[in-house]
Amino acid sequence: MLQLFLIGIGTGNPDHITREAENAIRGADLVLLPHKEDNKAELAQVRLSLLQSLAVASDRVAHFDMPQRRQQGDDYELQVDEWHDAIAQRWQASLAAHLPSGKGRVALLVWGDPALYDSTLRIAARLGLAQEQVHVVPGITSMQVLCSAHGIALNAIGAPFLVTTGRQLRDNGWPRGVDTLVVMLDGQCSYEQVSEPDVDIYWGAYLGMPQQILMRGRLADMAQRITARRAQARQAHGWIMDIYLLRRH
Amino acid sequence: MLQLFLIGIGTGNPDHITREAENAIRGADLVLLPHKEDNKAELAQVRLSLLQSLAVASDRVAHFDMPQRRQQGDDYELQVDEWHDAIAQRWQASLAAHLPSGKGRVALLVWGDPALYDSTLRIAARLGLAQEQVHVVPGITSMQVLCSAHGIALNAIGAPFLVTTGRQLRDNGWPRGVDTLVVMLDGQCSYEQVSEPDVDIYWGAYLGMPQQILMRGRLADMAQRITARRAQARQAHGWIMDIYLLRRH
Repeated sequence: MLQLFLIGIGTGNPDHITREAENAIRGADLVLLPHKEDNKAELAQVRLSLLQSLAVASDRVAHFDMPQRRQQGDDYELQVDEWHDAIAQRWQASLAAHLPSGKGRVALLVWGDPALYDSTLRIAARLGLAQEQVHVVPGITSMQVLCSAHGIALNAIGAPFLVTTGRQLRDNGWPRGVDTLVVMLDGQCSYEQVSEPDVDIYWGAYLGMPQQILMRGRLADMAQRITARRAQARQAHGWIMDIYLLRRH
Repeated sequence: MLQLFLIGIGTGNPDHITREAENAIRGADLVLLPHKEDNKAELAQVRLSLLQSLAVASDRVAHFDMPQRRQQGDDYELQVDEWHDAIAQRWQASLAAHLPSGKGRVALLVWGDPALYDSTLRIAARLGLAQEQVHVVPGITSMQVLCSAHGIALNAIGAPFLVTTGRQLRDNGWPRGVDTLVVMLDGQCSYEQVSEPDVDIYWGAYLGMPQQILMRGRLADMAQRITARRAQARQAHGWIMDIYLLRRH
């Protein structure tokens, strides 16, 4: 029977890996490794180095190209749906080619944790596997690395925090009843639109990687500086992944 | 100079440990190990086994008894403040006894992640150390293990989620604008008071440990069954740690 392992590997620092993830990768008969047509060669290299350090032979790695997501139209949810279908088809083609018996342990490496703003679980659901055939291995998320790098807690004592996206923050403003927001998937510097007074921002990019950048301070003082630094870093590296925490006093 | 490492070790499964945490524990000159007067001997044993498996010699471990938190009065914040002061004093006494030079690497093992509903960072802040002397090593949290065990994502596509406490849920009800809640620190089965229709609950106790229990389903159907199972398990083990996710359709 096919066993699928969705393995969180952290944010780019090979030392984020857990023993559980190491064991799952070492034990895999096949590792599915997607390639994107973007400029994240540094990230692809982190994943390959990880496999090499765990002595995963290259004939156990199935490379495949990620399909493109259709970008035209305002039917975003349908676009995502079609895209996940297309990815699942690539997985199945790889499995048919490399594990024709339909048996074995198959691993997918996921940045951060498969439970947090990641599609891998939803793509896996298209394979028609039973629940006990899909195994999720948690990994260190960028939100944890952000906090550890800044030496701060996610929550104030006994208080809630909201994990949300740049789009949500832009469309809906600061939500009621919560003073701490963690904002992910924000390509548009949505913190610039926050008008609340007395907010601190803790920002980080390339978290856990050698090129990590950290900035923090009063949002009113930092917003433009972070936007400028972000643009500069994105140009220098050809890509950027960042995250931030906003805390209202 | 003193270097303090606050190290997340996951939820009780030794395979949650990251390479970064392993290295920090192995490299420590002293591990501060608090003991509580409760029935969590199983948890204490997990921590000791971890130290043994990493070949930490017993003369590098400083055991100390956790002070009691004053429970009388309705000045909860002051109680917590006094308690953290008292814990910091125990740390300092241990450091003075075991590292009289005031130099060396000191490790504290934290369940889950030091950034998530944990006091260790706030206690460390009482030691008057510079920011660069305090190092936080992220660990796998119970919220991640809950999701991996149930094979679910934390968030719906592009949607936010709120991490909160049982008390917040009881006092403030279901918050506006969010359909997914992760509830921690709930000793009082506060999910029973949720009156929203069409809510699913994903509950887990002793996550990552051999005695792990998982239950899931429609909240209306499951609430009483979970409460009964929880009481039974708590009695059998003498303690319980649990967490749940609520998702509104």
